[in-house]
Amino acid sequence: MKGTMLYGPRDVRFEERPDPAIIEPTDAIISLPATCVCGSDLWPYRGFDPVTQPMPMGHEYAGIVEEVGSAVRTIKPGQFVVGSFFASDNTCEICRAGYQSSCINRQPGAPTGAQAEYARIPLADGTLVATPDIPDDDLIPSLLAASDVLGTGWFGAVAAEAGPGKTVAVVGDGAVGLLAVLAAQQLGAERIIAMSRHESRQRLALEFGATDIVTERGDEGAARIKDMTGGLGAHSVVEAVGTQKAMMQAIRATRPGGHVGFVGVLHDVQIPGGEYFFSHVHLHGGPAPVRRFLPELIDLIWSRKINPGQVFDLTLPLEQVAEGYRAMDERRAIKTLLRP
Amino acid sequence: MKGTMLYGPRDVRFEERPDPAIIEPTDAIISLPATCVCGSDLWPYRGFDPVTQPMPMGHEYAGIVEEVGSAVRTIKPGQFVVGSFFASDNTCEICRAGYQSSCINRQPGAPTGAQAEYARIPLADGTLVATPDIPDDDLIPSLLAASDVLGTGWFGAVAAEAGPGKTVAVVGDGAVGLLAVLAAQQLGAERIIAMSRHESRQRLALEFGATDIVTERGDEGAARIKDMTGGLGAHSVVEAVGTQKAMMQAIRATRPGGHVGFVGVLHDVQIPGGEYFFSHVHLHGGPAPVRRFLPELIDLIWSRKINPGQVFDLTLPLEQVAEGYRAMDERRAIKTLLRP
Repeated sequence: MKGTMLYGPRDVRFEERPDPAIIEPTDAIISLPATCVCGSDLWPYRGFDPVTQPMPMGHEYAGIVEEVGSAVRTIKPGQFVVGSFFASDNTCEICRAGYQSSCINRQPGAPTGAQAEYARIPLADGTLVATPDIPDDDLIPSLLAASDVLGTGWFGAVAAEAGPGKTVAVVGDGAVGLLAVLAAQQLGAERIIAMSRHESRQRLALEFGATDIVTERGDEGAARIKDMTGGLGAHSVVEAVGTQKAMMQAIRATRPGGHVGFVGVLHDVQIPGGEYFFSHVHLHGGPAPVRRFLPELIDLIWSRKINPGQVFDLTLPLEQVAEGYRAMDERRAIKTLLRP
Repeated sequence: MKGTMLYGPRDVRFEERPDPAIIEPTDAIISLPATCVCGSDLWPYRGFDPVTQPMPMGHEYAGIVEEVGSAVRTIKPGQFVVGSFFASDNTCEICRAGYQSSCINRQPGAPTGAQAEYARIPLADGTLVATPDIPDDDLIPSLLAASDVLGTGWFGAVAAEAGPGKTVAVVGDGAVGLLAVLAAQQLGAERIIAMSRHESRQRLALEFGATDIVTERGDEGAARIKDMTGGLGAHSVVEAVGTQKAMMQAIRATRPGGHVGFVGVLHDVQIPGGEYFFSHVHLHGGPAPVRRFLPELIDLIWSRKINPGQVFDLTLPLEQVAEGYRAMDERRAIKTLLRP
């Protein structure tokens, strides 16, 4: 098959790769009618995460089961399935508590890389969720979004305890931040403030349910949120960037007793204890346990109540994956969909 | 009256002070049948918090209302009342959400110092809670404990979501940590692990409901908690120290999806984002909103269901307050009770 490898900063190659095969009896092989580039792929692409050897890329996937290992019980060839970036057994005590992305048997969800024609998925029964039937083609982008960016934005909103009566602010206008807006809207938030200075992203945020747009960033952004909330701060803030500035913006925009849900992978962040102590803000986040939310998200997509696939504003043939990275790196695209 | 002043590191003086008087119409003046030294008083005593001018000391108090300002409506002279270290209006949106220690009108709870014969309490109606009657003398230490160390340990256990079916670990064996053990027991925790290497404190922890004692500290302490919980970590950990080592011990002893409740005033602590991101641990804490818990705590003490006053293992005449500080500084006493 052909698949995507990262050789070093900005060196993405679409090249011949071994066909994935069943290794463990709990594996499945799936074919990928679409795949995509993740904001977190940009960390190694930009050289912020070191690349010591060529890496297979892509960890978001939805597709058709081609083959399953001998120990796979519930997932069947021919099903359309959605998984996520960590494989999990979905039976251990941590999974049962809803933290599948910290499963005691956690593995990479698509170790062969999902920016490819096929992928091997470990722990298939625990990791994959089948859709009711083979989806119409127009649902595929949304199902693919459920696999990571929607599941992650959703976890951010849940971790921030977005809900009825709450004012929710979202720091970050990438796909995850935009889908945290959608999640907050679905969870019943009263007021949803998207923090963005890009017109196309502001438009999508409003379409997803944002009631207000704030263009200020950092401490000015936090001060603006306080101004808009009687000086108190938002009840719930989703941090969907992962930098020091964004994390402090989130904490400072939250009222005492409020909640920050953080889902941007934290890079070089140090949370200062003295300030944090007196903030009275709850912190929760980390790698989203997407598996917890997949049944509900698939149901919302299947019944066409949500359309998270709108975050894909660029579609390219899979072989042009390198251009997909470039477009996202230069912020010409929110998120790139790749079709074989 | 006579009261306690801190002039600099280890320089505690019991000296003549002005009698407190009503300044704002919302003030009350109370007389203090007992007072005490707080673990947090040791930060400036030891020179970790700078002392730029002589400071009146003491912020834990329970006593008899002597006089109230013209705007005080519910608190009456002659009542026995318990307050806490922050005065709050108990009516603002933050107070109503249960975060009275971040009240928008927050003030020091006993600005004239409570290691004294009398104290002025601002915002009396919001801050003070009256007991059902004048208490028996043997209840006074427990009511005084409710004002800070019990309320703080209780908030730590609540913030850590201690409750039925949960394994709770407590980092710190000062009065607050010991009372977090008592709180976890009252909240119905299944297993309560006190982390202490001091025999007298271990004994009190066991009396307050600890089921296990762990003597290891830091990373060895965290590893020991993991060993005792099938490799997963505790569901709930209370951090009652405030140092980098204790905070990391708490985070590392908690399972993914679990909760750290931190109530030790954080000093020179930086929480590393990368490690924290992947821990999946909830963080919540800060200055305890003792006012939220006072009615319940007074009720438990009044009905003699709990006896938090046991943390006072040294009683001295108020005029020997300096010796009370020394005994706690040298860890000869858990907590010093002072009687006029």
